[in-house]
Amino acid sequence: MRPDTFSYQQLFDFTKAILQKIGCRDEQAATAANVLLSADLRGVDSHGVARLSGYVRLWEVKRVNTDPALKIIHETPSTAVVDGDSGLGLVVAPFAMQVAIGKAKNVGTGWVSVQNSNHFGIAGYHAMLALQHDMIGIAFTNASPLVSPTFSVERLLGTNPIGVAIPAGQEPPFVADLATTTAANGKLEILQRKGGVAPLGWIQTKEGKASTDPHELKAGGALLPLGGDKDHGSHKGYALGAIVDIFSAVLSGANYGPWVPPFPAYVPMPDEQPGKGIGHFFGAMRVDAFRPADEFKKHMDKWIKRFRSAKTIKGEEKVLIPGDPEREMEFERMKMGIPLLKPVIEDLKFLSERFNVPFISTKPVT
Amino acid sequence: MRPDTFSYQQLFDFTKAILQKIGCRDEQAATAANVLLSADLRGVDSHGVARLSGYVRLWEVKRVNTDPALKIIHETPSTAVVDGDSGLGLVVAPFAMQVAIGKAKNVGTGWVSVQNSNHFGIAGYHAMLALQHDMIGIAFTNASPLVSPTFSVERLLGTNPIGVAIPAGQEPPFVADLATTTAANGKLEILQRKGGVAPLGWIQTKEGKASTDPHELKAGGALLPLGGDKDHGSHKGYALGAIVDIFSAVLSGANYGPWVPPFPAYVPMPDEQPGKGIGHFFGAMRVDAFRPADEFKKHMDKWIKRFRSAKTIKGEEKVLIPGDPEREMEFERMKMGIPLLKPVIEDLKFLSERFNVPFISTKPVT
Repeated sequence: MRPDTFSYQQLFDFTKAILQKIGCRDEQAATAANVLLSADLRGVDSHGVARLSGYVRLWEVKRVNTDPALKIIHETPSTAVVDGDSGLGLVVAPFAMQVAIGKAKNVGTGWVSVQNSNHFGIAGYHAMLALQHDMIGIAFTNASPLVSPTFSVERLLGTNPIGVAIPAGQEPPFVADLATTTAANGKLEILQRKGGVAPLGWIQTKEGKASTDPHELKAGGALLPLGGDKDHGSHKGYALGAIVDIFSAVLSGANYGPWVPPFPAYVPMPDEQPGKGIGHFFGAMRVDAFRPADEFKKHMDKWIKRFRSAKTIKGEEKVLIPGDPEREMEFERMKMGIPLLKPVIEDLKFLSERFNVPFISTKPVT
Repeated sequence: MRPDTFSYQQLFDFTKAILQKIGCRDEQAATAANVLLSADLRGVDSHGVARLSGYVRLWEVKRVNTDPALKIIHETPSTAVVDGDSGLGLVVAPFAMQVAIGKAKNVGTGWVSVQNSNHFGIAGYHAMLALQHDMIGIAFTNASPLVSPTFSVERLLGTNPIGVAIPAGQEPPFVADLATTTAANGKLEILQRKGGVAPLGWIQTKEGKASTDPHELKAGGALLPLGGDKDHGSHKGYALGAIVDIFSAVLSGANYGPWVPPFPAYVPMPDEQPGKGIGHFFGAMRVDAFRPADEFKKHMDKWIKRFRSAKTIKGEEKVLIPGDPEREMEFERMKMGIPLLKPVIEDLKFLSERFNVPFISTKPVT
């Protein structure tokens, strides 16, 4: 399958136009398109425009409100709970992160838990919003259950990612964005398309046996927490996914555990809803609430340089800093364009016809 | 090796007396003994009284100040940096956690980064201090380098644990306490004593090859980040350990990465010290800064019950909640006593003679 390549601007304009067609106001459509495209730019293809038609289907079944009234429903000087009013997570999350940043400006740090939202794209994007303010940014979200805790055959947790962005000085920032599973679902999708085999430790069958079949989830299997099995620390990955779930949803009043609504609109809603929508959690910490920002950045530069220059295992080029591969990918794709797979292009063409938004040309990027 | 068993009170009194002999004031000696013994009670034998003689040796070489002047050197309404004045981490950490709790009372959350400290025992103890205030507690610490980042042969990170304690209602609290490695160093020590073999994914040789030899670290090998290898997400464990290091030390002005001072007093200090001592990071979040505490606890109970009652893999008894095994161990050891291995008992006897503190009897606990 040879991917065709599109420029960032082409995909941004198209995505924004489609979001406006389903009812997003101009500014919110731009924000959402920006968040979605950041995934494509950073190489997390599973979370980018490939999901645009999925968001549209959620709107069709009235599970997404494209003109939400975002509001703070509870707060203290350093905390808030935001009600996303069933809005796109792509819009709710940047709003909530700005609330966290505002509180950090006032009292050093800000912490915001969010209820009644939907999928928010990539965690790293939201965490990185803090960087321009010389703050450390943190972003968690829960997600529909695909992951079995250690010893469980039931799927009770989402891939529940942790995003943490830390500013540096001369060096680029440290940006970690990790699913709390051995492998993100997007990696399984790649193997499914290629007909490949997954390493042991990524997935289990519906009976809880080790499996290498990337289609196992459709047969009732599950993704495994980071660690893979008990001997390799899967109880730690399970605990981390649980912390993300609780901070995002039990603190805010969203749905948690097995009751988180699914992303695909055709999957029925869980039988019970102990909360509202899906949940997120955001943090912003002003670096100079701890020590002068220039001092902190000087030491971050030293930290980064030391790790990047570590002696490598024979055959490995270099030790990476979290965020390095995504930043290199973003640089390349801004210049060379974003490659999309045929099924994704077909999806976008379908949206083009349906909403009468001219489809973007596929001529090579210059 | 048959362990002998001692009561909590016996070991507490002895530990406190030894700490007073090396200069700790009464109250600080009691705090430190309490923290140290909590590790033995909870089954983390590597971090309990087994380390008492190690702390004494650090005092001998003047790397620990047993009468520290703990102080806040920078603060905002929700943050502080604490200077531990080279004190025992066992004393510095509870002080810093109380600062975080005090700030959370005022503005919803409190976040404290600590410089100039030493090893603080188990992270879970400090995180759990928040529970009695209906707060979520968080505790990180960095530690001397034993862990190689993905692709590195150099050891640049400690086992850098993450402790998170979350209150519940009728159910016992959720308490996660996890090294950001596949296996904690204590587990290797157990294999070393038994002459056992480690699973692949725990350790690498000094050339970065997979190893099952629990003595590998002495030959220049390294522990591996949670995940084990790149295919199984070791870059995630590396990122988590790095976040703990940066929050604990780059934020506070402690030493980080390869420059964190070693615990064994006979190991020379690193050639360079970009900061002071080792670093910790603590957080406290008032649950009712997000939603009413009784509402939160009701949902935590529901969360815990659902996970605990999950259908298990055939042959596994039940799905555990983080903190379950340690709490059960604590209950048992408070009743039945704490078993100590012969070398640990020998160490304590040596301290007894040296400091003229009567050694505790080894008669069975009644």
